[in-house]
Amino acid sequence: MNSRSGIVTLLTDFGTDSSYVAAMKGAILTVNPRALLVDATHAVGPQRILEAAYLLDTYWRHFPPGTVHLAVVDPGVGSERRPVALYAEGHFFVGPDNGLFSYQARRVESAVLLHPGRHSRGFISATCHGRDLFAPVAGHLSRGEALAALGATYPAVTALPEAWPRRQGNRLFGRVLHVDRFGNVVTNFDAADAERAVGVRFGVDRLVQRHVRTYADAMESELVWLVGSAGRIEVAVRDSSAAGRLEVRTGDEAVLELTAAGTP
Amino acid sequence: MNSRSGIVTLLTDFGTDSSYVAAMKGAILTVNPRALLVDATHAVGPQRILEAAYLLDTYWRHFPPGTVHLAVVDPGVGSERRPVALYAEGHFFVGPDNGLFSYQARRVESAVLLHPGRHSRGFISATCHGRDLFAPVAGHLSRGEALAALGATYPAVTALPEAWPRRQGNRLFGRVLHVDRFGNVVTNFDAADAERAVGVRFGVDRLVQRHVRTYADAMESELVWLVGSAGRIEVAVRDSSAAGRLEVRTGDEAVLELTAAGTP
Amino acid sequence: MNSRSGIVTLLTDFGTDSSYVAAMKGAILTVNPRALLVDATHAVGPQRILEAAYLLDTYWRHFPPGTVHLAVVDPGVGSERRPVALYAEGHFFVGPDNGLFSYQARRVESAVLLHPGRHSRGFISATCHGRDLFAPVAGHLSRGEALAALGATYPAVTALPEAWPRRQGNRLFGRVLHVDRFGNVVTNFDAADAERAVGVRFGVDRLVQRHVRTYADAMESELVWLVGSAGRIEVAVRDSSAAGRLEVRTGDEAVLELTAAGTP
Repeated sequence: MNSRSGIVTLLTDFGTDSSYVAAMKGAILTVNPRALLVDATHAVGPQRILEAAYLLDTYWRHFPPGTVHLAVVDPGVGSERRPVALYAEGHFFVGPDNGLFSYQARRVESAVLLHPGRHSRGFISATCHGRDLFAPVAGHLSRGEALAALGATYPAVTALPEAWPRRQGNRLFGRVLHVDRFGNVVTNFDAADAERAVGVRFGVDRLVQRHVRTYADAMESELVWLVGSAGRIEVAVRDSSAAGRLEVRTGDEAVLELTAAGTP
Repeated sequence: MNSRSGIVTLLTDFGTDSSYVAAMKGAILTVNPRALLVDATHAVGPQRILEAAYLLDTYWRHFPPGTVHLAVVDPGVGSERRPVALYAEGHFFVGPDNGLFSYQARRVESAVLLHPGRHSRGFISATCHGRDLFAPVAGHLSRGEALAALGATYPAVTALPEAWPRRQGNRLFGRVLHVDRFGNVVTNFDAADAERAVGVRFGVDRLVQRHVRTYADAMESELVWLVGSAGRIEVAVRDSSAAGRLEVRTGDEAVLELTAAGTP
Repeated sequence: MNSRSGIVTLLTDFGTDSSYVAAMKGAILTVNPRALLVDATHAVGPQRILEAAYLLDTYWRHFPPGTVHLAVVDPGVGSERRPVALYAEGHFFVGPDNGLFSYQARRVESAVLLHPGRHSRGFISATCHGRDLFAPVAGHLSRGEALAALGATYPAVTALPEAWPRRQGNRLFGRVLHVDRFGNVVTNFDAADAERAVGVRFGVDRLVQRHVRTYADAMESELVWLVGSAGRIEVAVRDSSAAGRLEVRTGDEAVLELTAAGTP
């Protein structure tokens, strides 16, 4: 837990046309001038916590151990949500505990509650927490400060129930986590769910049954489902937008139809 | 003035879908391969100088002293505006002297006029100045070159009058500097102006009177004004877009209504 | 060929709102934690290979020698296109051999065919190649690994014919490579073509004849053509969008009208 890569990744919903992220970067570099900053994305749909949790989960494990992952999507600022820093599977995570760390929650080795007052200057806003609390904390962690030195032990990191599908008979009821630029529709069904799946359904009548192992196995303009590069089931159309074809958006319900138990 | 952080921040209106910024980065790294490049934003509204001046002013002070801040929003290329580099409050600023540095202008300790001919190759465009003049100059400054070695002393950096409100009776006439991704409307009224304010008005009939200290103090869907994280008065709606509700855009007039002098 | 700058530039069509690029960055830094990552652009029109080839060509030469340029715009994944790494004019290029490297193809000193199986884990998609094949290869090259160690010699890098205009009588038939944020229309005619040019034509009736050396020489709202900062002929309107005025888009045909041979 003492080794650090010096890398800090940043994910926010602040947009690429504002300067909030720049101020956060300055705050990190003021604490640790040798930090290596890596922009993940700042174009998460405003205040879409579950999408952000998914995006974070697609990249953190590809960085060297000891990397600090900063994530700020924070609609609930001022409410009950708590600012936290946590350590899981060799990586550090910093941000509001509102479900952003759902996919890390089950594997947290230690977590601390951060104190806004220690860094900020009175005014409390999401962007301000990014700059005046989370960014300095990420700076300190990236240069080797102990997690325990940053706050009191925090018992349980929030895992949003909707981060995983729930089973009902021969169906899994899940969600669209993300639609990428190519129109691929990523769900929260994972590779293990795929084994008994007969198709992915959106709404009443849009069922995608054709299963392929890779995009290359799909015929042109054919709707297919496959296990994507981040280990989730996704629906795609070769050279076109599955989301457009299916009229599906991030946050929509998705249903995985399963074979009856015992059926070959 | 000799210590440098090695950091170069970049702000332009070149967009994120072109390669002009990439060419600038190459030009900086060719001069100083150890420069640490930090993107502020490249999505400033095309040629919106005042908005860019505001955005720059929200982040520069959060970086370590000795940082070089490169800003290129340059509609007046080929006209009277001059390429400059300046030093103020421990930081360096490089770009066209067209008002981009309005908020630094009053605190300039030294400034120099840059010579396009020294770096560029005949063709003169905004993007070319970015790559062939401002980028190399930023590279030289970031690795420790003296400001004075880059050009002749430049007497007075331009401050746009519209960067500050003007007073008329019990009113301050100002501007919308920026609308952020959440629809928060940032004005050029500052924290000191807030003391006697009774409300912020847009056009004839859209008056926002409710004052809060933080977003969290606002009720849902209530229009409020507050002093934002960059020290300016901004108008916000919790969990919605104030700009959308008020039909306000960057550059619009904003009026701060003040209590009558002597009135308790 | 042994010296490396440690810099890796990244160009993709993955968009700025996904996390595919972040996963690629992690994969590069896992191989070479000291790599200096520079985003070129990730907003290339989805699957526009020729535009990407042009954008790449505008910045690579501005970086220090020994830089690795990673480019992933990969509609043909799973088809005949091959993953390659190549060395040309002191720089390294990594990506799919589908025409992305058209402007480097004639000057390749050495090229190798990459083996997906060596790095990836079964699932093959464009984004996965970015993360599991091209990114690690870029990491290895950036830290000094020999090109020859990465794969078998690859004979001929693909140059798309449409990357250059073709001559027919007193006309050159070319293409719009790119429309930048200001509405400037960049064609694939180069500076040498300009010598005998009398105008640039789009469609039947939109002819731009007025030639200027710099933007500053144009009158307001006047359509002009000039040799732009990347050495190509472009059409511009001062302070407005030439693409909007001419109703021209990336990929459209452009015709360069030439003086008759022998005509003074």
